[in-house]
Amino acid sequence: MPSRPPYLVGLVGNGVRPSLTPPLHMAEAAALGLDYVYRPIDLLEHDLPATAIGDLLRQARVFGFDALNITHPCKQLVIDHLDALSPTAAALGAVNTVVFGADGSTTGYNTDTTGFETSIRTALPGASLAHVVMLGAGGAGAAVADALARLGTTHLVVVDVEPSRAASLAADLGGRHSETRVDSAGPDELPGLLAAATGVVHCTPTGMADHPGLPFDASLLDPQFWVADIVYRPLDTALLQAAREAGCRTLDGGHMAVHQAVDAFRLITGIDPDVDRMSRHFRTLVAADED
Amino acid sequence: MPSRPPYLVGLVGNGVRPSLTPPLHMAEAAALGLDYVYRPIDLLEHDLPATAIGDLLRQARVFGFDALNITHPCKQLVIDHLDALSPTAAALGAVNTVVFGADGSTTGYNTDTTGFETSIRTALPGASLAHVVMLGAGGAGAAVADALARLGTTHLVVVDVEPSRAASLAADLGGRHSETRVDSAGPDELPGLLAAATGVVHCTPTGMADHPGLPFDASLLDPQFWVADIVYRPLDTALLQAAREAGCRTLDGGHMAVHQAVDAFRLITGIDPDVDRMSRHFRTLVAADED
Repeated sequence: MPSRPPYLVGLVGNGVRPSLTPPLHMAEAAALGLDYVYRPIDLLEHDLPATAIGDLLRQARVFGFDALNITHPCKQLVIDHLDALSPTAAALGAVNTVVFGADGSTTGYNTDTTGFETSIRTALPGASLAHVVMLGAGGAGAAVADALARLGTTHLVVVDVEPSRAASLAADLGGRHSETRVDSAGPDELPGLLAAATGVVHCTPTGMADHPGLPFDASLLDPQFWVADIVYRPLDTALLQAAREAGCRTLDGGHMAVHQAVDAFRLITGIDPDVDRMSRHFRTLVAADED
Repeated sequence: MPSRPPYLVGLVGNGVRPSLTPPLHMAEAAALGLDYVYRPIDLLEHDLPATAIGDLLRQARVFGFDALNITHPCKQLVIDHLDALSPTAAALGAVNTVVFGADGSTTGYNTDTTGFETSIRTALPGASLAHVVMLGAGGAGAAVADALARLGTTHLVVVDVEPSRAASLAADLGGRHSETRVDSAGPDELPGLLAAATGVVHCTPTGMADHPGLPFDASLLDPQFWVADIVYRPLDTALLQAAREAGCRTLDGGHMAVHQAVDAFRLITGIDPDVDRMSRHFRTLVAADED
């Protein structure tokens, strides 16, 4: 007889069917001897709008789910339907993990931001976080920016092709983190910004299989700054390849992807997963996916 | 990495939280090395009416369930929401197992009736099924009566304290099974009916922990007939104890409970479970429950 409770978890969002997060959780659970079923719940497959997230939360509770991971386009919308938020998720205004309590109550967390924070801490030890240029002011950028502010970045510049989006994120973030100066800029300012940077984080889709290419000219790369990419399909993006050639320290997007799953797994089960094993699983899954 | 698909199954009905069926399925799946999560979905806990079954079916599909077991009060109501029915379930007009196809289509089965059929075949071999008296014309009685007709009972008498309910089941059953003569009667006719019986099946709640006692006077027991009880909490009911003392062959309700689960497990997974192991698990679960 199973001696530990079986876990039931879902991932809600658009186009989540091919996500590696469900197999990543299940492989780690299997290694820990846990019964753990993790289902993708793809809104597009079922013609459900993003606003269905409230109903889905209530239904998931009825069906005995222990937790849901939440992704685009529901990370903000879900907040109105939760009973409680972690301080980090509340500050960011975005939730990617909802845990159901034994009483059916719902608490929202954001392990995108904690996952990026841990990635930098563990995979770029000693890197200077003082002056960081971040490309991309979407949801991923917001999670990364909050992590950088918590990590002690003193000057963060948010760069986006949409100036108003960059300005909005910069104003929001600066308002919450008085220790971090946050500015916004357009891509045309990158040469000057990168000349003063200690680190660069890339948070746009450029470099993904269906958005090939570099987010900026490779001639701007300089070994004075580290380069982190949050794209993980492929793991070795054109940006990271060029950054290595230029002599930069690099951090691939697999670290954030794994750590967001590590943090979610811990919140859901109360059990510390084996980070190295999950990382190996993840890289095996990505490699299988790229075949 | 898990090499077989993980299974997600639910049990929908009133008061299903303490059901032994979920742990029974999960223990067998664990023994087979399958990831298998089986959740009770208790309508009463969530203030859901029986008519919610249609919505629950659609939602279960969205959440990636492979199958649902269905119990009171939804076994009839669910039929209108299914794409297909097994012939046995269609004849009976009741479904206790819904399997979702890869295309999301739903097929209904009734493993209560097939489970009782297998119980009689395997645990009362050689017993005469010619003249059977059945007590209780509710849903369980209907499933048992159909099984008896399929097993070749030539004369079945349905006895119920509500004469109209007995008459209705008898008429329905007789209309479907031309090889079986089906009559109805009231409890006052039992002395004469039992004198001619080769077997008796008890399908009322009498003998359950909260309905203690005997369904008829023990002096009517005669070793010329076997006695089957479908009550399984406790397994050894007062009726079965008295029947053994009178020299009757007996069949406890655990057999039907196990075989309905065996048949459902096979429909859900396509894998033949180990019947003896499931039976041992079941009896361990009942014993733990009775402590």
